[in-house]
Amino acid sequence: MTKVAVILSGCGYLDGAEIRESVLSLLYLDEMGAEVSIFAPDVEQRDVMDHITGKPQDEKRNVLVEAARIARGKIAPLVQLNAEDFDALVIPGGFGVAKNLSDFALKGPEAEILPVFQKAIHDFEEAGKPIGAICISPAVLVAASKGDRLKVTIGEDAGVASAIEALGGIHENAATDAVVIDDTNMVASCSAYMRDDAPIADVAAGIRKVIEQVLRMSDKQKKVA
Amino acid sequence: MTKVAVILSGCGYLDGAEIRESVLSLLYLDEMGAEVSIFAPDVEQRDVMDHITGKPQDEKRNVLVEAARIARGKIAPLVQLNAEDFDALVIPGGFGVAKNLSDFALKGPEAEILPVFQKAIHDFEEAGKPIGAICISPAVLVAASKGDRLKVTIGEDAGVASAIEALGGIHENAATDAVVIDDTNMVASCSAYMRDDAPIADVAAGIRKVIEQVLRMSDKQKKVA
Repeated sequence: MTKVAVILSGCGYLDGAEIRESVLSLLYLDEMGAEVSIFAPDVEQRDVMDHITGKPQDEKRNVLVEAARIARGKIAPLVQLNAEDFDALVIPGGFGVAKNLSDFALKGPEAEILPVFQKAIHDFEEAGKPIGAICISPAVLVAASKGDRLKVTIGEDAGVASAIEALGGIHENAATDAVVIDDTNMVASCSAYMRDDAPIADVAAGIRKVIEQVLRMSDKQKKVA
Repeated sequence: MTKVAVILSGCGYLDGAEIRESVLSLLYLDEMGAEVSIFAPDVEQRDVMDHITGKPQDEKRNVLVEAARIARGKIAPLVQLNAEDFDALVIPGGFGVAKNLSDFALKGPEAEILPVFQKAIHDFEEAGKPIGAICISPAVLVAASKGDRLKVTIGEDAGVASAIEALGGIHENAATDAVVIDDTNMVASCSAYMRDDAPIADVAAGIRKVIEQVLRMSDKQKKVA
């Protein structure tokens, strides 16, 4: 059974993990027979956003505690993630990736990466294990990666695409229901809710393809090893 | 195009809407071509639960504001739901249905129903429009309904099943991936995370069948009307 770690960054697309992308990742991983463990950093959220007004609330929330809502309590602190125990890594999107796992939302290509998240990326890369990145995660993955010329998509957002290129990555425009595959660096990505009004069925189709590709790369890698 | 209203009760299964059930409902409604509008009551949550420890947090949250995380901001107060504008109603589960839309979690068959939620149920029933109920929602639907002998499932929880019977409903045991159909009262139900450890793929299969049945009943009703 393929073991996959999923990293969440909160619960809600404006200040945490994009909820639908997280659930759809878990759905397709289960449907395709993977065994999933969920992780999130035990840190305070950068902010708490009112998802009706789009404005900050005067409140504090913890990334791990909020992510546990999506995980139904079955979650561990990201510091406990050991890449040796897994075959692949999946990172759903949401502003949490760009606010809590990094400060990409504020600094773009000069972003700093949360050390415990950076370590996870490096460990999976060094072990030659595939990574699936969804929505804004591909950009933050390029920022965190030691890999060479990662090819990813975040859809067609010109600003984020140029940040990816500035970070040494390659950006490829792609539809919401499409996957971009980098077989050399073993990365599969899709844009999901980078297009804010994307129908959930298209978002789901893209995520399904990312999960398929991650599991395919993992199978291939296991045969080589 | 079939228009479906979805009622959420927060964001997180211990104090609000079950997140996965909510997202999967939205997914299958979109995949099957329905047009969806999301509603939640503008009331304070009964409690805020830490989803790691399972214990209450000393905090206040609003049902509508939290549900907006799942709805990505596209949500309206439940008081604005007009059954005339829709062909069907879907109610995902989670403790929010039994804590915020009613007090079923505290009082079982003696539960009081939030008036704005009760009105929505009665309006859809009186208009002869189908209702899909997921997880604990079938039990609360029976409590809220004016219908006669509603047949539903909440899986195989004996306590909740006997509460349903005490309320004048009929409970049928069913697997997580199964749907129970009451064509007379136009209700389709599945148990979803009533089985706490159910695989998400099974939960999804049950919800997919509920959505299929709700849309089938709606089509049939529209032909009669």
